[in-house]
Amino acid sequence: MMLITRKVEFSASHTCWNPALDRAANEAVYGAEANPNGHGHNYRLEVTLQGEPDPVTGMIIDLKQVKQVLEEAIVQPMDHRHLNHEVPPFDKVVPTAENLAVEIWRRLEPLFEATQGRLKLIRLYETDDLYVEYEGR
Amino acid sequence: MMLITRKVEFSASHTCWNPALDRAANEAVYGAEANPNGHGHNYRLEVTLQGEPDPVTGMIIDLKQVKQVLEEAIVQPMDHRHLNHEVPPFDKVVPTAENLAVEIWRRLEPLFEATQGRLKLIRLYETDDLYVEYEGR
Amino acid sequence: MMLITRKVEFSASHTCWNPALDRAANEAVYGAEANPNGHGHNYRLEVTLQGEPDPVTGMIIDLKQVKQVLEEAIVQPMDHRHLNHEVPPFDKVVPTAENLAVEIWRRLEPLFEATQGRLKLIRLYETDDLYVEYEGR
Amino acid sequence: MMLITRKVEFSASHTCWNPALDRAANEAVYGAEANPNGHGHNYRLEVTLQGEPDPVTGMIIDLKQVKQVLEEAIVQPMDHRHLNHEVPPFDKVVPTAENLAVEIWRRLEPLFEATQGRLKLIRLYETDDLYVEYEGR
Amino acid sequence: MMLITRKVEFSASHTCWNPALDRAANEAVYGAEANPNGHGHNYRLEVTLQGEPDPVTGMIIDLKQVKQVLEEAIVQPMDHRHLNHEVPPFDKVVPTAENLAVEIWRRLEPLFEATQGRLKLIRLYETDDLYVEYEGR
Amino acid sequence: MMLITRKVEFSASHTCWNPALDRAANEAVYGAEANPNGHGHNYRLEVTLQGEPDPVTGMIIDLKQVKQVLEEAIVQPMDHRHLNHEVPPFDKVVPTAENLAVEIWRRLEPLFEATQGRLKLIRLYETDDLYVEYEGR
Repeated sequence: MMLITRKVEFSASHTCWNPALDRAANEAVYGAEANPNGHGHNYRLEVTLQGEPDPVTGMIIDLKQVKQVLEEAIVQPMDHRHLNHEVPPFDKVVPTAENLAVEIWRRLEPLFEATQGRLKLIRLYETDDLYVEYEGR
Repeated sequence: MMLITRKVEFSASHTCWNPALDRAANEAVYGAEANPNGHGHNYRLEVTLQGEPDPVTGMIIDLKQVKQVLEEAIVQPMDHRHLNHEVPPFDKVVPTAENLAVEIWRRLEPLFEATQGRLKLIRLYETDDLYVEYEGR
Repeated sequence: MMLITRKVEFSASHTCWNPALDRAANEAVYGAEANPNGHGHNYRLEVTLQGEPDPVTGMIIDLKQVKQVLEEAIVQPMDHRHLNHEVPPFDKVVPTAENLAVEIWRRLEPLFEATQGRLKLIRLYETDDLYVEYEGR
Repeated sequence: MMLITRKVEFSASHTCWNPALDRAANEAVYGAEANPNGHGHNYRLEVTLQGEPDPVTGMIIDLKQVKQVLEEAIVQPMDHRHLNHEVPPFDKVVPTAENLAVEIWRRLEPLFEATQGRLKLIRLYETDDLYVEYEGR
Repeated sequence: MMLITRKVEFSASHTCWNPALDRAANEAVYGAEANPNGHGHNYRLEVTLQGEPDPVTGMIIDLKQVKQVLEEAIVQPMDHRHLNHEVPPFDKVVPTAENLAVEIWRRLEPLFEATQGRLKLIRLYETDDLYVEYEGR
Repeated sequence: MMLITRKVEFSASHTCWNPALDRAANEAVYGAEANPNGHGHNYRLEVTLQGEPDPVTGMIIDLKQVKQVLEEAIVQPMDHRHLNHEVPPFDKVVPTAENLAVEIWRRLEPLFEATQGRLKLIRLYETDDLYVEYEGR
């Protein structure tokens, strides 16, 4: 069993605000993250795939394919975007790092299902000092 | 002559859009940065001061003072903000990295004038792969 | 199941010296780390909490609370300190990276017990090239 | 149970080319990595050992010993080498990151068997954005 | 006056060997770098341009243009290549970091001459611990 | 004209305390750095040499020689030491980052005088967020 991890980055804005809560509650929960104008991050995403190296190629998965999947499924729709306004379901779901990780998992898992590399873990850095990890369970 | 440099970070959103240009021109000039909803970065700012170490303290300047100046003049007004909507003059000036560096210089220079450390250089990272440097001249 | 990790740093001195051993044995075991005057590191601590994102807030735990706990329980008592002289139990216990990780775990675990985020792992970097990980078991 | 991890680096060349495949197949599988002249990387290796801190020393394992093992078994034979031409079995095995990780594990595991620290994991970075992890199973 | 810096990376092999010197002299001068099979690095290149922000765009230079120039003039011809065998003039010139910086300057300077951003400095990292800087004079 | 820079690291303790000042004055000036037991840092030192690449070797200076000079003049006497107690003149001079940079310059400059690479600049990081630069003038 072996793991391979590829990093990508995207720059996006978000507002942490739950419309089911009033302003005071939002500010109590999210602090400065609740600013309705949004603020932004250079998100760094590490995607880890698990598999067996192919005896012929010595690779778990074609990395050109991994790069293309991450580009099309994550970077193009999220880079230089305001998550709440332009990236569903974040018009309805609060784009905390946790919820963003869940959505990235939801998008990536089926795309790797037919490949030799099964999606094992995603690690999402909001800043250098804060990251979440999700294994889809 | 000696230089001392302190780093701080702030997370903000910006839109690169010049109202004097039409949509096509803005998109040609700024590409994805022109998204009117804004996108964001973890800006990293390095502030370099020049001076002579004081013969008694061995320090150019009190670093507690530097930290407080950067916190009050830059981090508090800019962190978790949308620059175009909340941080003048970026309601009127396009918040490119270059213009943001000029504004940071304009705010910091007078605050260090009366200290032993004269503002020498600011270096502003928009991402790990792109930064501007400005010396105020 | 999701993990969230917050990093903090503190600068401290330590001496690796076991009083039950003589000088030659201490120097054989700890090498340069046995210098009785102490030497220092910028320790980097990553604290990982495990939990389920709250359906209302989308967060495992209030990060402002995490920050405050780490500040009060670890950074304030350890930053700018000589561990052997000022931070019990390191007057009696050799402050190797391993033992320091155990002590950090012992201090943090009860503080997170009543929260949504259970302490899962701590990772302590002594330098960029050396770190220990501890899961409390 | 505790883990301790030590990083080392080595600079090497490799060519990803399987002689059982023709040129077109090699280029389809490995892309630019198939260049027969080779290209190179600053490989970064993290070696993780698992053990119990010794009650007397407070250490899982003597780090001077770890450093020497990594130097003799990995850095000296691989640093400043072309893996395909100078480091067996890569005259016969394609030196993908995955296969290189397997070989590093094969070399290191017996060397730590008689120590307090059992080899737990190796993580091998080919670039900052790509790494593999292997646990020997 | 303002500076803007863009980073790119490329992975390449090189051999430091001067055919005008015999084997003993080459090994004395270059040490392990003289290995005739070559070894490799993840080269990191920072390209600094100097200019005045345009009063309309707020930018020194169109960064999409910078990216394209660096891609075409440096990354495409050098990435995944063995410098001595595939990248002139390194069939005749020893590809030390110093000589590689000179060649990169020679390629880039004319490409930026007609733009608003004049080439000011290149910084080339061979490893994290070693870099050269060149200003073309 | 070209610059080449080599990084080294050392871990040391220091206390910022001027015996000419009383306790209250020391604490006002140095804050937590005044702790008489000392605290420590992983100091990171970048040493920049200026010169012309030799037409035969393509190198400003033999890097093996640079490495040896830095090892003997800086790392061996300062690594794993308490600067105030073990590294003159810091028994008499307050080991601020500024004064440490001056002392490192004073030790290194004559050692490079007879070489092709003249000492141009030293940059000393006390932490990732704070560094001083000194050019010896």
